[in-house]
Formats: sequence, structure tokens, C-alpha cells
Amino acid sequence: MSAERAERLAALVAGEGLDQVIVGDLVRPGDSGLDAIANARWLTGFTGTSALVVVGPQTRTFLTDFRYTERAEKQVDDAFDRVTATGRLIPELAKLLSGRVGYDDAATSVANLDKLETELGDGVELVPISGLVERLRRTKDGAELELIAEAARIADDAYETGLAAGLAGRSELEVAAAAHARIRELGAEPSFPAIVAAGPNGALPHAEPSDRTIGQGELVVWDMGAMVDGYASDGTRTFAVGEISDEAREVYELVLAAQAAGLEAIRPGVDGTEADEAARSVIREAGREEQFGHGLGHGVGLEVHEAPVLSKRSEDTLGAGDVVTVEPGVYVPGEFGVRIEDLVVVTEDGYRNLSSLSKELRTVS
Amino acid sequence: MSAERAERLAALVAGEGLDQVIVGDLVRPGDSGLDAIANARWLTGFTGTSALVVVGPQTRTFLTDFRYTERAEKQVDDAFDRVTATGRLIPELAKLLSGRVGYDDAATSVANLDKLETELGDGVELVPISGLVERLRRTKDGAELELIAEAARIADDAYETGLAAGLAGRSELEVAAAAHARIRELGAEPSFPAIVAAGPNGALPHAEPSDRTIGQGELVVWDMGAMVDGYASDGTRTFAVGEISDEAREVYELVLAAQAAGLEAIRPGVDGTEADEAARSVIREAGREEQFGHGLGHGVGLEVHEAPVLSKRSEDTLGAGDVVTVEPGVYVPGEFGVRIEDLVVVTEDGYRNLSSLSKELRTVS
Repeated sequence: MSAERAERLAALVAGEGLDQVIVGDLVRPGDSGLDAIANARWLTGFTGTSALVVVGPQTRTFLTDFRYTERAEKQVDDAFDRVTATGRLIPELAKLLSGRVGYDDAATSVANLDKLETELGDGVELVPISGLVERLRRTKDGAELELIAEAARIADDAYETGLAAGLAGRSELEVAAAAHARIRELGAEPSFPAIVAAGPNGALPHAEPSDRTIGQGELVVWDMGAMVDGYASDGTRTFAVGEISDEAREVYELVLAAQAAGLEAIRPGVDGTEADEAARSVIREAGREEQFGHGLGHGVGLEVHEAPVLSKRSEDTLGAGDVVTVEPGVYVPGEFGVRIEDLVVVTEDGYRNLSSLSKELRTVS
Repeated sequence: MSAERAERLAALVAGEGLDQVIVGDLVRPGDSGLDAIANARWLTGFTGTSALVVVGPQTRTFLTDFRYTERAEKQVDDAFDRVTATGRLIPELAKLLSGRVGYDDAATSVANLDKLETELGDGVELVPISGLVERLRRTKDGAELELIAEAARIADDAYETGLAAGLAGRSELEVAAAAHARIRELGAEPSFPAIVAAGPNGALPHAEPSDRTIGQGELVVWDMGAMVDGYASDGTRTFAVGEISDEAREVYELVLAAQAAGLEAIRPGVDGTEADEAARSVIREAGREEQFGHGLGHGVGLEVHEAPVLSKRSEDTLGAGDVVTVEPGVYVPGEFGVRIEDLVVVTEDGYRNLSSLSKELRTVS
């Protein structure tokens, strides 16, 4: 699998007029940079945090440090030459480079570019380029889709378990913590800290669960995902606790209609702007466009936010194998919010929904 | 508190011949970069992930995006002018800069430096500089010490709870998961994924818990910490399951003696190299120096690894208020490992140990 992925990346590299590309974190090598780590993982299967991979038509080299030699032997395909740095990674990396070499200028710090440049051999030229691996990563294969679907199933279970315990009288933090615990009990991890936002908190664009007790008559926006073998899910439901206002009910139905319109638009060849507009126009016609302050959705995979983007400014076009969220929302400041989010796979002729939860307004105690 | 911290940073900025310094993540603003986030948090109290702070003798400005306006109002001291970016952060940042401006070249991507440079006003000069905030952050005040001590107490509780359930017959993963659950039950989070490494796994320099069952006669290296309000603890104990070999017992006593020698060296004015050598020489005299492949310790605070460093290559000198680990280890490849790690505060005349667990060899079932 990783041999075939390296093959495809090498073709992209050649297409860009490059001899090699550096994949991995050159901010604090061995330390951080989620994009960069996800790229190296996708390419090689390596799950550690310290890895730099050099790929080109003539090159398949995987570089790590002494802490990870053994793990690299287990995880990284023989298509790659595995090298363990005896000292720091950057001087070792420099030895592997030749010709015109692309580096990810979004994942390389100024300080590390300086260090790398002082170590370069004769005739090596560094060329800034971003997003090459991301371009390949967005199209998921069968094994990836199974992991994401499994993560979505686990999150759906955590919703049901949480609802069975009731929402009224519990704090947002309690509901979120119990959901995290259920996800872990099922052998996964939360893919991000769950958002549980009741009443006016639901109108905050980036709410965090608080110790506020969930009360009767409130809407609860609950945004959550699980992660299985590195692959994430992401979904949102909004629940009613007891009897809600007519306006809240009306907004719920509006968001539900917008979400249906957004889903309807999902198929290969549709632009990210078009899918966004399909949902947005429904909300605009109801006079609430300014209360929908974010894009329709985003890709999900080894990262919770990755390519493609569905928004007014998107430059992407959907293709089969993309996994995207469809998540319109309407936020009434000081009052309440509603967001309904499904995770879907783009198929040859439309989409397959990975979320199993009903979207009819559900009233819970 | 944050006003006083900004004051001290401004003095450092002036001392470097700068008018301002940019604090925060310029890799993927609003997204990652733990050092950078820890720096902004330390300086302002802001716990969100999207923040850039500009500080100088004449400047105290806190910049965030619309998602965090409300949180910034709650958390960020009035000593700072709070600004919400209406669009992207970097153009807004550029408007705040004047004169000679330091930026953290280790936390700024090449792509973002380019973007910032194209937006700069007349007469603004960017100067690479790293580690200014880190230099201040390493010295902890009373409130910080209380949080770290509380995190250490919670981790110690999780050790005791885990030992009470027994180690033999459980997998490393089970022991680690139960410890994580206990830490969460006590209201904290693990500061990093616990390492539980039994038998030969204990000799791996960067073991991850496996599904291997812990057996009789094995040593178990268990490295763990908790995090309370953003502040971490870090500690390690090595336990014996049933009867262990004479060599294992001998190595345990050796590491214990080295750890005592390391602790003995901890006080203000001692160089990181000296403390390291105090412990290392004990292991060298026993002929096992090559089996101790890492440094003696590191600072702990908002990050699990921060300044100062205690190692052969350290350039730091200990000062009162530093919080450091003292953690010698001996790793016998294919056989077993021993590491004993305390977390200590450097005091005016020595150190105070935040770890409450005994270090006598403890045999468990």
C-alpha cells in the first residue's frame, strides 16, 4: 500500500519538475506539526512523531531517530530505505537530497530552513511547495473508509448512551466527559474535545463545554467524533430538552432543510462553492444568512479538518472517495444555536452517509 | 499577574535592542504549535489556540479571531489591548507592528514569514529571535508550583490505584488505560500517554504500551504524568513483579544510587552538565554508561519538556523556581530497563521533591 502511495507521489513530484520532495515536519522535527505527521503516516504507515520522508522518481527514503528504529522496521514498507539518524535529523536529511527538492514551506520553520540550507550539498536547490501529499490523501481507499465508518459508529453509540442518561440537569462538561469515556470504552479516542453547548452557549461560534447546567426548554448543540487507528469522524446533532420555543423549532426545521439541500448537492464534479451555496441559499431565503457564519463542510481523515473545503471561498471540486462533513448551522446570538452535521463519502453517483442518527428533532429529558 | 509578566518581557525586548516581539504561533496561526501556545498562555492567561501577542516597552496587544473574542474578554488582562481580527490574522498582525520587531523563527513557517513581509508597513524590520518567553517561563511562581504539585499528587494516586489492582497478568495497555481513567476521575488529564513497559520492552528507549501481558519476574518501567489547568507533572517508577534476577536487582540499586546523586546536585547555580554528571558518573563507575542513553532531566511546566535541560550538552544553570525531572535510567537490551524519575522544584538552598512515592524496590503481584 505504501509502495503504491509513494509511486503516486513520485509521479506528482516529477509533474512539478522536481527531483524529490521532503515529507514531514520541519518545524520542530520529532515534536509536532499534525499535518506533517499525517502526511508521513499516510505515505509510510509510520505512527511515530519523528519522521522525514524523501520521495522522488529515484528516491524512497524514510529517516527517523534512534527512538523509533524498531518501530520503523515494523511499520514502514520495504519500498523505503530506512535510515536512523545518529545525531540530529536535519544534517542527516541534507545528505539524502539531490537536485531540485520540494519542501513544505507551510510546515518548515524559518530557523530550520536556515539550518537545512547550511548543510546542503552542491547543486541542491530547495523549492517551496505545499499540499502535494494532501492532494492525494483526500481520496480515501476502502480500508480508510472502513476506519472512518467505524469511528462514526462509535460516536453514534456515544450519542445514544449519553441521551439515555438524559441531558436536563447535567452540566455540559459532564455530558462531554461521559461521551469521551464511552468512546474510550469502545476502544477509540475522541477525535477532538466534544462540544456540548446548551441554550445561549449554542450560539457561540466556538463554544467549549461549561459547568452550566442544561435546563428545560433549551436546544443542545453536540458536536463530537471518534478516532480509530488514526482516522477521525466528525458529526453534530442538536437536541431539544423539553418544550422549546416556536422560533427554535422553526430554525431547527430551516437548518434541517438546508442540510438536506447540501447533501443533495454532493456528488463528483460539484464545486465546493456549489455545495455550500445549495445549503446557504435555503438559509438566505429565510432571511438568516448572516446567522450562518461558517462554511458548509470540510474533508475528514487522518485530520479532523483536511481537504477538500466546502465554502464560499472553496477552490476544490468533489471527487469520489472524498470524505466530507455537511454541516450548516444557524446561530441566534444570546438565544440558541442549531447545527446538523453528517459525515459522508462521495461515491460515483452521489454520496453515502456514515452517520446513522436520525435528524428529526429529538426531544429528550 | 499577566501585566507583570508582560512588563518583564518588555524589559527583555528592550534589552535585545528591539521595539516589539511577536509571541505566538506563526506556523499555522490558530491551529497548532504547542510552544507558541504555551508562551501566549503564560503571558496572557488565554487558553485558546488562536492568539498572537505583541509586546514591547510601548506595546501590549492581544490579537485573536472572532471565535475567541468572548473568551479573550474573560481571560486576558486589561493590561492588553484586545483586538479581534475581522479577516485573517497575519494582515491584522502586520498593522500592529512598528520598528525593530522580534519574531520566533522556530515557531514561524517560511510561508507565513513571506505573507507577513508582504504586509509590513514602512520602516518595520523583522528580526529572528527565539526563546525570550521560554527564558521567563522556566521560573515558576507560587500558583504555578501549586498546580504542578497537584498534578504530581494525582499521578501518584494513579500509581497506587494501579498497583492495588496488580500488574501480573494484565497487559501494558490495560495498566496504562486504567491509569488514564483514574487521572481523569480525579479531574485532571494525562500530561502525555503513559508508558508501561515490562520485561524487554523496558529496554526500548521510547516504548509504547503493548498488548503484551506482564509476567512474573519482570521489571515494569512506568512513566506517567497528569495535567492540571495546563500545568504538567512527569514521573517514573520501576516495579518488580514477583522475584527478579540478581542482575535486575543490582541495576535497580545502581539507578537508585545515581538518582540520589543527581538529586544531591540540584540547587541554584549548578550547571545542567554538572547535575547530569553527578548521576552519570555513578553509572559510569559501574561500567554501564553506554546503557544510559539520555540526559538526566528537563524542565516541566506548561509543557512536559521545557527549559532548563540537564544533560551532557546543557547550556543552562539551575535557578530557584526551576521545576525539573531527575531521571537516570539503565537499559539492558533484550532484557529489561530501569528508570527512576522524580519531579523537583529548585529552592534557594536545594530542592523540594514533588513525588511522594517511595523509591525502594517495590515488589508487586
